[in-house]
Amino acid sequence: MKAILENVRAKTPLVHFITNYVTVNDVANMMLACGGSPIMSDEAEDVEDITTICNALVINIGTLNKRTIEPMIIAGKKANELGHPVILDPVGAGASKLRTETTFRLLKEVRFAVIRGNISEIKTVYSGSGSTKGVDADVADAVTKDNLSETAAFAKELSRTTGAVIAITGAIDIVADKDRAYAIENGVADMARITGTGCMLDGVIAGYLAANVDNPLYAAAVAVAAEGLCGEIAAKRMYDFDGGTSSLRTYLIDAMDHLDGDMLEKGAKIEEVL
Amino acid sequence: MKAILENVRAKTPLVHFITNYVTVNDVANMMLACGGSPIMSDEAEDVEDITTICNALVINIGTLNKRTIEPMIIAGKKANELGHPVILDPVGAGASKLRTETTFRLLKEVRFAVIRGNISEIKTVYSGSGSTKGVDADVADAVTKDNLSETAAFAKELSRTTGAVIAITGAIDIVADKDRAYAIENGVADMARITGTGCMLDGVIAGYLAANVDNPLYAAAVAVAAEGLCGEIAAKRMYDFDGGTSSLRTYLIDAMDHLDGDMLEKGAKIEEVL
Amino acid sequence: MKAILENVRAKTPLVHFITNYVTVNDVANMMLACGGSPIMSDEAEDVEDITTICNALVINIGTLNKRTIEPMIIAGKKANELGHPVILDPVGAGASKLRTETTFRLLKEVRFAVIRGNISEIKTVYSGSGSTKGVDADVADAVTKDNLSETAAFAKELSRTTGAVIAITGAIDIVADKDRAYAIENGVADMARITGTGCMLDGVIAGYLAANVDNPLYAAAVAVAAEGLCGEIAAKRMYDFDGGTSSLRTYLIDAMDHLDGDMLEKGAKIEEVL
Repeated sequence: MKAILENVRAKTPLVHFITNYVTVNDVANMMLACGGSPIMSDEAEDVEDITTICNALVINIGTLNKRTIEPMIIAGKKANELGHPVILDPVGAGASKLRTETTFRLLKEVRFAVIRGNISEIKTVYSGSGSTKGVDADVADAVTKDNLSETAAFAKELSRTTGAVIAITGAIDIVADKDRAYAIENGVADMARITGTGCMLDGVIAGYLAANVDNPLYAAAVAVAAEGLCGEIAAKRMYDFDGGTSSLRTYLIDAMDHLDGDMLEKGAKIEEVL
Repeated sequence: MKAILENVRAKTPLVHFITNYVTVNDVANMMLACGGSPIMSDEAEDVEDITTICNALVINIGTLNKRTIEPMIIAGKKANELGHPVILDPVGAGASKLRTETTFRLLKEVRFAVIRGNISEIKTVYSGSGSTKGVDADVADAVTKDNLSETAAFAKELSRTTGAVIAITGAIDIVADKDRAYAIENGVADMARITGTGCMLDGVIAGYLAANVDNPLYAAAVAVAAEGLCGEIAAKRMYDFDGGTSSLRTYLIDAMDHLDGDMLEKGAKIEEVL
Repeated sequence: MKAILENVRAKTPLVHFITNYVTVNDVANMMLACGGSPIMSDEAEDVEDITTICNALVINIGTLNKRTIEPMIIAGKKANELGHPVILDPVGAGASKLRTETTFRLLKEVRFAVIRGNISEIKTVYSGSGSTKGVDADVADAVTKDNLSETAAFAKELSRTTGAVIAITGAIDIVADKDRAYAIENGVADMARITGTGCMLDGVIAGYLAANVDNPLYAAAVAVAAEGLCGEIAAKRMYDFDGGTSSLRTYLIDAMDHLDGDMLEKGAKIEEVL
């Protein structure tokens, strides 16, 4: 696990983002804090050049507008051609027709290394993945200790149909490929009270994958644990200094800046779901 | 007053924002801190679906571009149809032709529950409200103890013509409907030295209205007092820790995260202008 | 030097930004912290009105999209007509065809008071400046003690061909017009681990120029030193409080808020390169 993190710090992966304008600054600073480097570019004529000089691509539809759908596809195809890992964050898939349909179109045209979302977004992805099994019958609306194996089985099946590592984030996170699933129990509830923890995680996952190309499943799981652990460290500091959620945001990025392999090995709570 | 705040925390109103890209992250984090939840969406094909699942809508023209004017109107009309409160922040109305004309168009096509701006923006709104009384003759350029009743009368008249609660923010804030006006004396001068206090307030007002639909005037006044009080708490903390304006921004959101009904009742300075 | 800073605080220059959506919030707060005031506007129909009421214009192509190229040119021409200083930050020039060509087009259509970038971006500017001397032969890829005079000579030549003050920022910063070059050794390496220090500096330079129109070279050099010094103050505070890079960002803006002429005179490390 230590090596996974240290590879990121050693290789400084450059990550291309087409992401939303709400959380983009935190995403950039988190990318730097975890050891990578961000470039944002969302213009059709610009994205091929930019993605070519990068090591990974994040597509996040958090403030989806029609102008940037084509660039997402152009960049995704180029990154696929170059063998760069591409991460999809289908923010709000299921909440609007445009977001759902764009998610389906992206799934059809781009090959993703990781798809990360909450359980509701991932169910929407599933509904468009061409799987013949119904989704509602199989998966609950929140991941709990009691439905871990059902959720893991669901994530594995979605990984089989999409070819992507599936990361379902929530109180308990599930990260799975077609053969294997991990449950990660890092993080604190207060992280849901700041915006952007998911978007920041997209970047951390991208960096971890780009620096650990032979081990995408485990790299993604470690990235999820790393940010969760940073959330725990940040929450402790928030309580110590009597701060609130905006302090938590600052401390979260600070914690990633300070995180090293030993802290991660000691604090990460990653277990395979059998 | 306590109940107004507690309703927000209990109901977690979901607020749809079409807002500027300068302050949007702070707006989202402030929305979460006050007890609500934000969704940003500004694409014509997306906004109806998104506003439908929300409880209120904020339209802020801070970085107005022509692509998002139509979505503002589509979302506004849909929110009107659904009976959701719609808040207008006419940032820079009066400073450019496009902003002024867009403000007038929005006033014509959408019914607003609250219009919030500084005195200069609100005067511009007034000039396009169809009122026959001249504005310059009536209202000074800054709200002071000496012109409270003139400004209150002006706000009441504008409320009469627009149907909206009018919130004029500055050193002293005026919040008025056609029958009644409140003056709020919370806040500190340093709040003007960080960007986004007005934009954040738009969201807080939206959340307070959505959670207190029977009492829009008072809910808006309490929201204004709440953020002002948070500014006072934040400024004290800034001085205690020898911080500057960026710390003030962090502490402002932290203070909203910590604010409860008792603190608000003790600290709010809301008085009716008679 | 003291007067340069105090003029900014006394005159509160209003700066119009057409900038990227990644760092725009920090840019706005830094502008306020240094004593100016920001307005963001990037719509073709809006930019002439807005730039007219301002004292300077910043054009930053960090998230370049085709919609905003025309507004950059419209605003630039208007600012030229009004005699307002215009600052160009050619973010990523050289990294993509669109960014490089847009940089060249801007150089052709707008007269810049300052062009600020890292050495690689400034070399790209040079390659499109019509200079007949080859660039690679002359200038190293990083500014060091050993190549100060070569870099200064390069900056002076580029200033001659463009008419702009050239600011090359890095571990050592070079600020030059055609006759004279300064080396500035303020700042800390950790500043490269937060996003936006360059974009924020664009605004500070704009404010310093607008408030010191008779002395653009020295005003730009002092602005560069001022932000670097704030970085030193911020880094010290970060270490004292065991913070990380997100704290550094907060403290950087805090330090600018607190900076006065005496601190600046004591801490600035500006030397002419002879």
